[in-house]
Amino acid sequence: MVNYSVDDIKEFENIIENSKNIAIISHMSPDGDNLGSLLAMYLALKKEGKKVIGLELDEIPKYLNFLPKIEELSNDENLNIDTLITVDCANTKLLGELGRKVFDNSKNIINIDHHKTNENYGDLNIVDSKISSTCELVTNMFIDLNISFDSEISTALFTGICTDTGRFLYNSTTQDTFKIASLLIENGADKNFIMERLFQSHDLLARKLSTQILSKSEFLYNNKVVISSITNDILDKYNLKITDLNDVINYYRDTNEVEISCFIKEKPEGGFKVSFRSKNHIDVSQIAESFGGGGHFSAAACQIDGDLNEVKEKLIKRLDNIEW
Amino acid sequence: MVNYSVDDIKEFENIIENSKNIAIISHMSPDGDNLGSLLAMYLALKKEGKKVIGLELDEIPKYLNFLPKIEELSNDENLNIDTLITVDCANTKLLGELGRKVFDNSKNIINIDHHKTNENYGDLNIVDSKISSTCELVTNMFIDLNISFDSEISTALFTGICTDTGRFLYNSTTQDTFKIASLLIENGADKNFIMERLFQSHDLLARKLSTQILSKSEFLYNNKVVISSITNDILDKYNLKITDLNDVINYYRDTNEVEISCFIKEKPEGGFKVSFRSKNHIDVSQIAESFGGGGHFSAAACQIDGDLNEVKEKLIKRLDNIEW
Repeated sequence: MVNYSVDDIKEFENIIENSKNIAIISHMSPDGDNLGSLLAMYLALKKEGKKVIGLELDEIPKYLNFLPKIEELSNDENLNIDTLITVDCANTKLLGELGRKVFDNSKNIINIDHHKTNENYGDLNIVDSKISSTCELVTNMFIDLNISFDSEISTALFTGICTDTGRFLYNSTTQDTFKIASLLIENGADKNFIMERLFQSHDLLARKLSTQILSKSEFLYNNKVVISSITNDILDKYNLKITDLNDVINYYRDTNEVEISCFIKEKPEGGFKVSFRSKNHIDVSQIAESFGGGGHFSAAACQIDGDLNEVKEKLIKRLDNIEW
Repeated sequence: MVNYSVDDIKEFENIIENSKNIAIISHMSPDGDNLGSLLAMYLALKKEGKKVIGLELDEIPKYLNFLPKIEELSNDENLNIDTLITVDCANTKLLGELGRKVFDNSKNIINIDHHKTNENYGDLNIVDSKISSTCELVTNMFIDLNISFDSEISTALFTGICTDTGRFLYNSTTQDTFKIASLLIENGADKNFIMERLFQSHDLLARKLSTQILSKSEFLYNNKVVISSITNDILDKYNLKITDLNDVINYYRDTNEVEISCFIKEKPEGGFKVSFRSKNHIDVSQIAESFGGGGHFSAAACQIDGDLNEVKEKLIKRLDNIEW
């Protein structure tokens, strides 16, 4: 069950048919769903004979560099675009400077997303907040558009479904998600390779460092909240990036006592990003939003200013307001 | 695609139709696939009006006590059984003393399993080593037997598929596995509840202890092998069971350098069980078999005698023989 109409699909077809130069972008700090849906759309439109470019707005994390044709993404900002497709992007602030420039210079905007906070900023908005991932949404669109899947497109889409569902863990995963996953494997998604790259190729040094971070985590509110943190000096010492430590936040969330896991990470340019993960009982997007951030029910993030202690204090002050 | 014939299904129907008292058992040290397939078969035959009991041969681990009707399992050994169904059990030694006694007193044996080491000890053997789990196999059988799924049966089956595939991670997971998972949710498998119980309800204290165990893990063969260990005195101190630490073995296996993860665990009655996990390149069942154990390509276990240091020495001597 998808949340778009036959008319939406017709309008998509119509806009694409009348577009000479198409670009596709997504939000900064790319993740699997972002890059998967971007590459799938890029590969599909290219296959359909369209002149299309995929834009790389930000550094691609190491764990996703296996994605098919990721080397074809461009960061050329001098584009003459008539139609811009944004995928997995809730609002235009998330596009960053280059993305915003391209956005402002585009005649038509097609906005394809699954964030419930999506601002419907497009001329055509295909937004379904009930679906697990933008990749699941795009798979459904391709079926309805009679776009044929090949192994590269299927691999890109399967990747985004895996990452945005926490490998089929989160409540957003439905019977349709499993059906779509099956279809993508049938069409050549390289499941074994994807699974090994996404979930069995963690940096060994990062995992060693993670045990140190986790042994220093602080537990609050009768173990309902855990706060972990990492600063740039330690990352630099180990020559690691913060995306190497993506898993730290899930470790204690996935226990019988913790409801919210917070991970405070110093940004390379200074300041702190705070990520939140919950199970299915507490909406952490509300916490993130109160600091100007956003996200999903069980996964959200924001920026909090100050030094590490100040950030923790502000965070705890906000957590005091939760009614358990 | 399943590896049994129409005749197998007919014979199964025939045996069940002519059975007055049916029992179902599985191997000692129960896991999700074992208990899931056992309970699903028990519930299905009961629904079909058969006189059937499910036998509990060993202590049920805490993380599986949510399974539907698990309280109806019996450990009564004075049974008058004409047909015994074994599920997920490669050989009869794994049945333990009670199970072996029931086995010896049964007229008909139906052996349903997916272990490649299955010894085909049944009068009817429905064994498919290509399928992800005994639960996926049983789901296929139920479809072919026109047994209707209800939410309890679907929940039991979905649980076993999740645990035996490492939540859809291992190579044994196919497009059919995803299709079956979708079907089980459609038929009422309580996916969100199962996922939270299996993967987000780890004992907090056990996770804290795990970071300590992992910080002391030893890396060998240029990081290709990691060995972790735990002894009874520490488990006792934390009041934990070894099944609370099931995840320790995967932590370093899932990195870019480690190929084999070994976890040496002192048994409550003394002696050491050694579990092995690999990715998709090294067959750890061969290592386990050389110590009299067994298992699958990527997950196997055995017992090794001696004190902790002797066990490590014997293990390393065997690992020396691997051609990387």
